[in-house]
Amino acid sequence: MRDVSIIGIGQTKVAEHWDRSLRHLAGDAVLAAMKDAGIEVADALYVGNMLSGLLTGQEHLGALIADFVGLRGIEALKVEAACGSGAAALRMGYAAVAGGLHDMVIVCGVEKMTDTTNAETTTGLAMAADADYEAIHGLTFVSINALLMRRYMYEYGVPHEDFAHFTVNAHENAAGNPNALFRNRVRVEQFARARMIADPINLLDSSGMGDGAAAVVLCPTSMAQEYGNGQPVHIKASSMATDAVAVHDRPDPLWLSAVEASSFKAYQQAGIVPRDIDLFELHDAFTIMSALSLEAAGFAERGKGVWLARSGDITRDGRIPICTMGGLKARGHPVGATGVYQVVEVTQQLRGEAGENQIPGARLGMAQNIGGSGATVITHILEAHD
Amino acid sequence: MRDVSIIGIGQTKVAEHWDRSLRHLAGDAVLAAMKDAGIEVADALYVGNMLSGLLTGQEHLGALIADFVGLRGIEALKVEAACGSGAAALRMGYAAVAGGLHDMVIVCGVEKMTDTTNAETTTGLAMAADADYEAIHGLTFVSINALLMRRYMYEYGVPHEDFAHFTVNAHENAAGNPNALFRNRVRVEQFARARMIADPINLLDSSGMGDGAAAVVLCPTSMAQEYGNGQPVHIKASSMATDAVAVHDRPDPLWLSAVEASSFKAYQQAGIVPRDIDLFELHDAFTIMSALSLEAAGFAERGKGVWLARSGDITRDGRIPICTMGGLKARGHPVGATGVYQVVEVTQQLRGEAGENQIPGARLGMAQNIGGSGATVITHILEAHD
Repeated sequence: MRDVSIIGIGQTKVAEHWDRSLRHLAGDAVLAAMKDAGIEVADALYVGNMLSGLLTGQEHLGALIADFVGLRGIEALKVEAACGSGAAALRMGYAAVAGGLHDMVIVCGVEKMTDTTNAETTTGLAMAADADYEAIHGLTFVSINALLMRRYMYEYGVPHEDFAHFTVNAHENAAGNPNALFRNRVRVEQFARARMIADPINLLDSSGMGDGAAAVVLCPTSMAQEYGNGQPVHIKASSMATDAVAVHDRPDPLWLSAVEASSFKAYQQAGIVPRDIDLFELHDAFTIMSALSLEAAGFAERGKGVWLARSGDITRDGRIPICTMGGLKARGHPVGATGVYQVVEVTQQLRGEAGENQIPGARLGMAQNIGGSGATVITHILEAHD
Repeated sequence: MRDVSIIGIGQTKVAEHWDRSLRHLAGDAVLAAMKDAGIEVADALYVGNMLSGLLTGQEHLGALIADFVGLRGIEALKVEAACGSGAAALRMGYAAVAGGLHDMVIVCGVEKMTDTTNAETTTGLAMAADADYEAIHGLTFVSINALLMRRYMYEYGVPHEDFAHFTVNAHENAAGNPNALFRNRVRVEQFARARMIADPINLLDSSGMGDGAAAVVLCPTSMAQEYGNGQPVHIKASSMATDAVAVHDRPDPLWLSAVEASSFKAYQQAGIVPRDIDLFELHDAFTIMSALSLEAAGFAERGKGVWLARSGDITRDGRIPICTMGGLKARGHPVGATGVYQVVEVTQQLRGEAGENQIPGARLGMAQNIGGSGATVITHILEAHD
C-alpha cells in the first residue's frame, strides 16, 4: 500500500453558528483545506457526521457537500460511527488513497448541534449507546459516563476534584486557539463549584457541544511535496477497533479494550512505543474518558490516569501533552466533526503552526477518536516529513 | 490493486418483521453470508443504512452489529448515501480489499422501516432530498419523483399506462423469489386502476417499503477459490458518481448525469459495452426511475426507456432483463439495504442459483443503486468466475 500524507487542512471556529447552515460550515472547512493544499479538484469526498438526519432533517451529505463546494459529480458519501464518525471518514479516505483507488481525497467532519432543542440533542447523542438495552431505560449519554466515573472513583479511590486538572489543562490550551468554543481559563476551585449534570459528572467534566466543521486533503506521500505549503504531514499509522456498545456487555467497564487494541495496532504499524509520541489528542468527551484513554493507550497504569493530570504531565511542557488546542472539553465537541478537528490540530503542531500553543520540536502526534463510551476507536499517528 | 470477489451471500425476506429488531435482521443476513462463505472471522464490517437513527433511535450500527454476530473488536462502521447506502458500503468494502487494507470484509445493508409511523418514514425518506431547498417546501420524496414523471410524460408524449410494464415485470419476477415482499402477479389493467399517491405516481408505480437485510463477504480473487461454494463471483467494476441533490439544480432534470457517469466508468473499467450485460438490477424506486436509468445507462435513447418495457425487452428472456428477482418494486425497498440485495441477487444469477428466475447462461450482471432522485449512483459489474 502507498504511504499517505495530509497536504491541506481547514476548520471553522466551534461555536453556535446560528447564521451558518450545515452545508455552509462544511463548505467553509473544505474550501479552506483545498486552498491550503493548493488544489481545485479532487477524486472523492468522505464526510463524517452523526446527527444531521435527526437534527437538521438532512442525510445524503456526501453529494450535497460535494456539489456545494464546486465538486459536483465526484464520489462522495457519509461515514458514521457515532462520535467517532470524523476519524472513521478519515479512515476510509486513508484506505482509498493508500490502496490506490484515488489520488486526491477530501475528508470533512461536520456537525450542526444548535438551532434545535436540548431534548433533541440529548436524544441524538443517546443513539451512540445501545438503544434497546441502555437508552430504553432512560440512560442518556452523560449518565452512562457518570456510571463509569462513579465506578472509577470507587474502585481506585480517586476523589472527584482530582479530575479538575484535565479541565484546567484543556481550557488553558483553548485560550490560545482562535477556533475554540471556550477560551476562558478555569481554576481548580471553579471546577469544584461547577453545576452537577449527572452525578458525579459536573459541567466542567463535560465537553462543550457546538457547530463546526474541519477538513483535510489526503494524497500519496510520493505526490505530497507538489502541493500545499511544502510541509505535508505523513499518516504513519491508521487503525480501528471496536467493542460492545453497551457498557454492561464488557467484562471490565473500566478498561477500554478498543482503545488498547486500536492504539497498540497503531504503535506497531508506526514502529514506535507510547513514549515516542510528542502529543496526544485524545477523546475527552468527559474527564473520565481522558483517564481511561491514557490508561488503555499505555501512558498510565490502570487507575493512574488521573495522576498524569495532577502531576502536570499532560500540559504543553509535560511528558505527554494532551488536548493541546483545547480538546473536546474546550475547543468543543461537534460530535461527527471532532475526529477531523483532532487531526487538523495535530497537523498544525507538526507543521509548527500552533502559535502560542506550539509544542516545541513536535515530530510525532497521535489523534484518537472514540464513538460511544469506548465502542468504536480510531487512532491515527502523524509524523512531520523530514 | 487486487481483484475482488464475492464468496458469500445472505439475505432476509423483505417484510414487516415486527418480531425482529434491526440488529436481528442484520445478524440473520451476516451470519448467513458467513456460513455461505465458510468463514468464522473477518477483518471488517461495513454497514449500509439510512434511517436507523430517526426510526429506531440507534446509530453506531458498525460496532453494534459486529458485536452481535460474534465479531466483537473488528473494524466496523456505517456508510450512508441515502437510498444508495447499501452499495456505498459495498464500495468501501471493495476499496478496502482491492487496496490491500483487509483480506476479508463483510458488507451488510439493513433497514427497519416498520414499527413506526408513516409520517416518520415519509420525513425520513425526504432526508434524501435537499432539506433547505426541496423538503422545506413540503416536497416529499415521492412528490419529487412525481414532478419528474409528469415532465417526462409531457416532454416525450408517453402515456402513464405505458409505465405499467415495469410493474408487471417486477411482480412477475418477485413471484419466483421467496425473499420478495410482494409475490402477487399484477396485470396492466390493475396498474391503471391503482390508487393515486402523488399524481401521476400511483401505488403500483411505487416500490414497497419493508424491513430487511442483505450481506456479502468479499475477499481477494486470488483467495476466493478456498472459500464458499467454489463459485465465487468477480467484481469486475465498481464506480460511483454524484450530481446535485436538488433536482432544480440540474441542467436537465430528465437526464440522470450520475447514472451516465457511474455506468460508463464501470463499462470502461470492465472493458465492456452495455449490450454485453446479461441482466441489470436497476434502482426502480418508482417506474420513472427505471425509464431514466435505462436511458442514462445507455440501454435506450432519451425518451425511449419506457419502450424497452412495452416491447418486453426487460423480461427474463428479453434483451436486457431487469429486476430479475422483483426489483425495488416487488422484492421491496428497505432503503439502506437495497444496494446489497441487488448485488446478492446478481450473485445468485451468476452462480445459477436463481431458481425459476434463472437467466440462462448469465455471465455478466450489473447492479446500480441510487441515492435520492439520482444524486448518488453506485454501479457494480459482476462476472462469474471461469
